[in-house]
Amino acid sequence: MKLPGTSQLQHGSPDQRSSQGERTSDRLLQLLKQHGSLCAAQLSEALGMTEQGVRRHLTRLAGAGLIEGYSGKPQGRGRAQQLYRLTEQGEARFPKSYPTLCMDLLHHLRAEYGPDAVGRVMNSRAQTLAAEVQAEWGPDLPLAQRLEQLTRKFQEANYGSVLEQSGDCYYLTHHNCPHLAVACEFTELCLAERDMIADLLETEVRCEARASTGASQCRYRISKSESAAVPTASSDVPH
Amino acid sequence: MKLPGTSQLQHGSPDQRSSQGERTSDRLLQLLKQHGSLCAAQLSEALGMTEQGVRRHLTRLAGAGLIEGYSGKPQGRGRAQQLYRLTEQGEARFPKSYPTLCMDLLHHLRAEYGPDAVGRVMNSRAQTLAAEVQAEWGPDLPLAQRLEQLTRKFQEANYGSVLEQSGDCYYLTHHNCPHLAVACEFTELCLAERDMIADLLETEVRCEARASTGASQCRYRISKSESAAVPTASSDVPH
Repeated sequence: MKLPGTSQLQHGSPDQRSSQGERTSDRLLQLLKQHGSLCAAQLSEALGMTEQGVRRHLTRLAGAGLIEGYSGKPQGRGRAQQLYRLTEQGEARFPKSYPTLCMDLLHHLRAEYGPDAVGRVMNSRAQTLAAEVQAEWGPDLPLAQRLEQLTRKFQEANYGSVLEQSGDCYYLTHHNCPHLAVACEFTELCLAERDMIADLLETEVRCEARASTGASQCRYRISKSESAAVPTASSDVPH
Repeated sequence: MKLPGTSQLQHGSPDQRSSQGERTSDRLLQLLKQHGSLCAAQLSEALGMTEQGVRRHLTRLAGAGLIEGYSGKPQGRGRAQQLYRLTEQGEARFPKSYPTLCMDLLHHLRAEYGPDAVGRVMNSRAQTLAAEVQAEWGPDLPLAQRLEQLTRKFQEANYGSVLEQSGDCYYLTHHNCPHLAVACEFTELCLAERDMIADLLETEVRCEARASTGASQCRYRISKSESAAVPTASSDVPH
């Protein structure tokens, strides 16, 4: 059984890389990744350790939701036995390159369909999101309640959003940008979000800070007076 | 100082969620995320622990590359002192949603520009990648060497690629798909990759397995005879 040349596992935690046990768990996950599924005896041989030791790792990894056991035939032959494979969560620990792919595609979208294409696609997405939000609102929902529900939507989408009020304004602050790398290169994403918020609230919405331009957060100032609604100008996003 | 309502930190490791120390580290990172930068005294107050205790966490998080210290004025006022902020690696631990964004954009690309638009953008990207690879090759590089270099490119891009030969064929196997979620929904990504490989190698390339259709890996069978080059048919990607 051939071990891959380089470890591909990604680590997120500050102090988890140290122990021998973790290196063994990494190699075990890597083997399941490469072979699809294996039994304890095969893992024991590949890792050069006892089956008892392998089972300790398997129990811990299954407990963490990274692998699962099932009954099957190794390579489709012989008697059925307990095999192990990665769960979706285990699969997710292998390196992904979605930010790069996303930015690549947007660059090529622009190259193929012209300078306005990125904005057009971003706005199409924002309008769909807005329609989904609006579908849950009654016809005459007051601004304060719309804003509360919108804040909750952003929170559910991992924006770390906080709503505050001061004087004649609300302040909506996102403490996390879940697509920061893309926003840094394509302002269209930020503009579409700001326009979507203004359309949903039907009031004046100004962007006062942007994570994508170096601020530690994104902050919107939202006028309490619904009659203050003005067409949003693209130029109010800080650069 | 207000702590955010929900923890946003993502955890990748099987057995790291347990200790009190890690929960404190999480809250510390969360505070830096929310406030941009803070000094040890501010963190001590917000976390309800001694400055000495805070410093122990700061040292460990800085050692792990998640935060960095620098000299500055808190909120831009008063005397300069040691402040702490997230590094890019620390920032990356907060939740991101690039796969979702990427798929959203591709759906809206199709909605705005028609059914062939996704393929057109994917092929445009593949052609650029191919041109970059080709630029490093001499004019008459033999197939075996082209294939070795292409395999290395895929390895560098985290495809976990392995090259083998058997009889009159090479087999190129990717043990990791760095954009699996997108490939599962948009076959265009797989087709563009296969066509790119065939164009670069100028020989017959057949896709025998696809991670995006449930296989544990992607595998290409590549004819050793360069004269075997035939126009690649879209239909050879397993569904």
